[in-house]
Amino acid sequence: MKGLDLGRPTLDDALAGLLVSALLLPQSLAYALLAGLPPLAGVMASLLPLLAYALIGSSTTLAVGPVAVLALMIGEAVGRLGPAHGVGPMTVALVLAAEVGLLLLLTALLRLDALGALLSSPVMQGFVSGSALAIAYGQLVPLLGLQWAPSSPWPQLDALTAGFGLAALLLLVLARQFGAGALRALGLAPARAQMLARMVPLLLVGLAIAAVAWLQGRGQAGALPLAGRIALDEVHGPASLAAAPLALWRAALPTALMVALVGYVSSLGVAQGLGARRQERVLPRRELLGLAAANGVAALSGGMPIAGSFSRSGLVAEAGARTRWTGIFMALAFAFWISLGARWLALLPQAVLAATIIVAVLPMAEWQPLRRAWRYSRAEGLLMGGVTLAVPLLGVEMALGLGVLGSVALLLQRTARPHWAEVGRIPGTELFRNTKRFAVELLPGVLAIRIDEGLRFTNAHWVRDLLCEEAAGRPQLRHLVLMMSGVNEIDLSGLEALQQLALELRSQGRQLHLSELKGPVADRLYAAGLEDWLPGRVFRTQMDAWHALMAAPGEPASHWVSP
Amino acid sequence: MKGLDLGRPTLDDALAGLLVSALLLPQSLAYALLAGLPPLAGVMASLLPLLAYALIGSSTTLAVGPVAVLALMIGEAVGRLGPAHGVGPMTVALVLAAEVGLLLLLTALLRLDALGALLSSPVMQGFVSGSALAIAYGQLVPLLGLQWAPSSPWPQLDALTAGFGLAALLLLVLARQFGAGALRALGLAPARAQMLARMVPLLLVGLAIAAVAWLQGRGQAGALPLAGRIALDEVHGPASLAAAPLALWRAALPTALMVALVGYVSSLGVAQGLGARRQERVLPRRELLGLAAANGVAALSGGMPIAGSFSRSGLVAEAGARTRWTGIFMALAFAFWISLGARWLALLPQAVLAATIIVAVLPMAEWQPLRRAWRYSRAEGLLMGGVTLAVPLLGVEMALGLGVLGSVALLLQRTARPHWAEVGRIPGTELFRNTKRFAVELLPGVLAIRIDEGLRFTNAHWVRDLLCEEAAGRPQLRHLVLMMSGVNEIDLSGLEALQQLALELRSQGRQLHLSELKGPVADRLYAAGLEDWLPGRVFRTQMDAWHALMAAPGEPASHWVSP
Repeated sequence: MKGLDLGRPTLDDALAGLLVSALLLPQSLAYALLAGLPPLAGVMASLLPLLAYALIGSSTTLAVGPVAVLALMIGEAVGRLGPAHGVGPMTVALVLAAEVGLLLLLTALLRLDALGALLSSPVMQGFVSGSALAIAYGQLVPLLGLQWAPSSPWPQLDALTAGFGLAALLLLVLARQFGAGALRALGLAPARAQMLARMVPLLLVGLAIAAVAWLQGRGQAGALPLAGRIALDEVHGPASLAAAPLALWRAALPTALMVALVGYVSSLGVAQGLGARRQERVLPRRELLGLAAANGVAALSGGMPIAGSFSRSGLVAEAGARTRWTGIFMALAFAFWISLGARWLALLPQAVLAATIIVAVLPMAEWQPLRRAWRYSRAEGLLMGGVTLAVPLLGVEMALGLGVLGSVALLLQRTARPHWAEVGRIPGTELFRNTKRFAVELLPGVLAIRIDEGLRFTNAHWVRDLLCEEAAGRPQLRHLVLMMSGVNEIDLSGLEALQQLALELRSQGRQLHLSELKGPVADRLYAAGLEDWLPGRVFRTQMDAWHALMAAPGEPASHWVSP
Repeated sequence: MKGLDLGRPTLDDALAGLLVSALLLPQSLAYALLAGLPPLAGVMASLLPLLAYALIGSSTTLAVGPVAVLALMIGEAVGRLGPAHGVGPMTVALVLAAEVGLLLLLTALLRLDALGALLSSPVMQGFVSGSALAIAYGQLVPLLGLQWAPSSPWPQLDALTAGFGLAALLLLVLARQFGAGALRALGLAPARAQMLARMVPLLLVGLAIAAVAWLQGRGQAGALPLAGRIALDEVHGPASLAAAPLALWRAALPTALMVALVGYVSSLGVAQGLGARRQERVLPRRELLGLAAANGVAALSGGMPIAGSFSRSGLVAEAGARTRWTGIFMALAFAFWISLGARWLALLPQAVLAATIIVAVLPMAEWQPLRRAWRYSRAEGLLMGGVTLAVPLLGVEMALGLGVLGSVALLLQRTARPHWAEVGRIPGTELFRNTKRFAVELLPGVLAIRIDEGLRFTNAHWVRDLLCEEAAGRPQLRHLVLMMSGVNEIDLSGLEALQQLALELRSQGRQLHLSELKGPVADRLYAAGLEDWLPGRVFRTQMDAWHALMAAPGEPASHWVSP
């Protein structure tokens, strides 16, 4: 199998793997907690799934593992389905991972990857922005140790927690903004400075653990919420999956569908976006198989559902990885950190993890795409903004569902009211253009109209009524020529509308002609007996129609120019 | 209000009204029974609603009143909602009529009549055919007096019932086929013969009643099921509506939506189909208002929901009606028959009504449209056939819902995989055509591709990948020209795909050009900063691109001809 050919590992791959593992360590714990799962669910999603993707996937930059947006979706499902089916959060997560893997596999086998198109660009971008906002806002609670007293609407913060959280946030932001510059000022080579600055999350983890250990030694750690034990001896094996009740599998399916869709589309987007810059081809079907395998392995080895991470994949590309060995090195380095420090990682304050999450997700909530979308298309801008707001207000699944429905409704609406133009000849040329945009010549008794859309059920009646109306307003009209260069398809409803139009015009002693028919459209019209119902002619070009109708008997040969 | 101007009544209108009332009489009773309602519900739907439509509607041919397809839908709802909410069938029917009227009114006020387009031509035709089959099959039971003994899977027929039913069927079929001819042979003028033949349903009613009365007089009518009393003294007024529980109003809403949609679309189709032949403009919004008023009046005066009837409207047109006075005359004539014969109509055997229904609906189950659809488009033929079968197998509401979903899915799928062609120049002309269909010239180092569909979220990734693939297979390629004559819209996803394509080509040292952009598409591209990301040029015509790229420096100027 072509996917298994990983090429030769390079030193760059090993370094990139090591580098990104420094970010993966806190993120894997943080996203597990975000999803309402024990930290182990994030750890196990960061080991074997990486190997599975490296063997089967196609992108050299995509860093798979726990990701924030999926964690949010998983968290909603865990909170809803766990109590309803009397199972623990881990069981829900594993069932979801298994279903996501199977759905992606099915999609690959049935070649349904086109379904990814359902998540249009504005919906996906709005969804990611909205998720980022919802996540960042939600993380304020663990970051500051907020607690609400029963009597007051205002929360109180816990000083120790907030101290850890804000300090971590400050360190991460400063390191991102000034880290590399400061290290270069200390005399390091730019590449090495950049790399060391990227290791700050690991430094942060070490510092925070040391601080907590010190405080605990002095009995001053109090009720500071910690990540908790990474119970490597309690890994959920396939037995947990087998014990899940059937009703849970059924109830989790809608969420699994959405997780699979979002995971696939966002991963493919990240992989293609990064791949384009390095002239790397990303193969959608291979990505489907790679993500399917990774999720399946996660389900069997006690990990939460996975996808490609925005932040870590960007880091992989930046670090100069060359082959998919990077993922394997990343998993190895991650295993090293975990085996070394599992005992100590339990001491990591949740506030520090919250800071990690906030720093990772906030860059995904961009204002710029919304502005661009609004400028390009009001409707699509509204859709994007609506989905962004719907995530925190209505929840992830509702937001996604409304987004997909909105995209489809917008498409239907656009095809329902197509652009059309009366066209005339630009004098001295063979070009026929909109009379409202160009100074053109017209033929007396002839109306030429270009419809800029396939004739389909959404617009068939409207187009027929429009043309009848236009014809009715011109008592001198003898010939109506439809210029079909923009008509890419005529469905059955469209065909009937054309036939009705021809009939109505004929009853008024007028003729309907067609010009510039596209090959496939013409084939089907002729196969359905075009000659039987079209009273007029089919012209290869609008110019042919011009020549033929200019010499129409009984008409003055002169023509006039419109403004 | 323009709608209230009925014009002057003519003698033709009076005669047409009288003629059609002969068909309305048995149909109004039959469709009420078909919907599981007392005959009075059909009678009341054939009086005041006709006046309301005549005052407000726009078609001179549309004969509104009880119709078979709606009766089937109402019957399903009555059987389901009546017992569930502890109300009688009439209450359900009145609530439905009120909701249908309000929904149509709302649609007219909010100018949502475009929603009618959701019922594409194959779905509507399949639905009507399927309903006709389901109705005709169901009417075999009352026609033959079928009864199932508890022990046998085979029904037994009641000889007396079947005698009435089959005799009525025979009379109606013979009258339709040979009635006018026979009367002409007897020396009548063709027009009068035709008209008299159309009065046969009335004759049938009279004969059947006389026969039953005679049998009853001899004590031999046995258990022959009769239409039952038309209790004109028990008409349901607005009080019945007011007494309906709120939960019923909510539960009936989905059915009301479908009844409104089907009623509106089928009525408009009938009115426009008949109107086109007589050069009459049918105004969709006026039709909405007319049907809304008619249903509202039906709800307030104890009638079932109404729409325009296929069979009776055809008869109105055939009888030569000239103004909407026809509807008023029809209601008057109908009132005359009812007031004259309400006592006697109770004696009408249900088997005779079943024969009336079968003769009315069977012509709607046509094989021809399905064959035509299949020949024109396999997918739409399958959709039509599927909806036809779904009506008897899955019920009307499921069939309609699946049909609408199917239409939308088909549209998405068509736009998802658009037709495209490499184009070249037809030698000596300015025409650029598909290299696979025409002998054309090509320029070396230049690839010109025409995409025959708007670039939208459904196809944006596919088109980008396709073009990257085509470019990748041509190492000599320097310029990719997209001929946009078929691109009617570019949405945000399409814009991003184009930008990614331009970026990828640029990274390979190649240029992306656009040609033949449509006005509105170009406007939006320029407004969004086309020059910022397009590495190549925008050519007004493909010929301009040809001239510009032919002289590209460092290229041989020769060009070759493809097969």
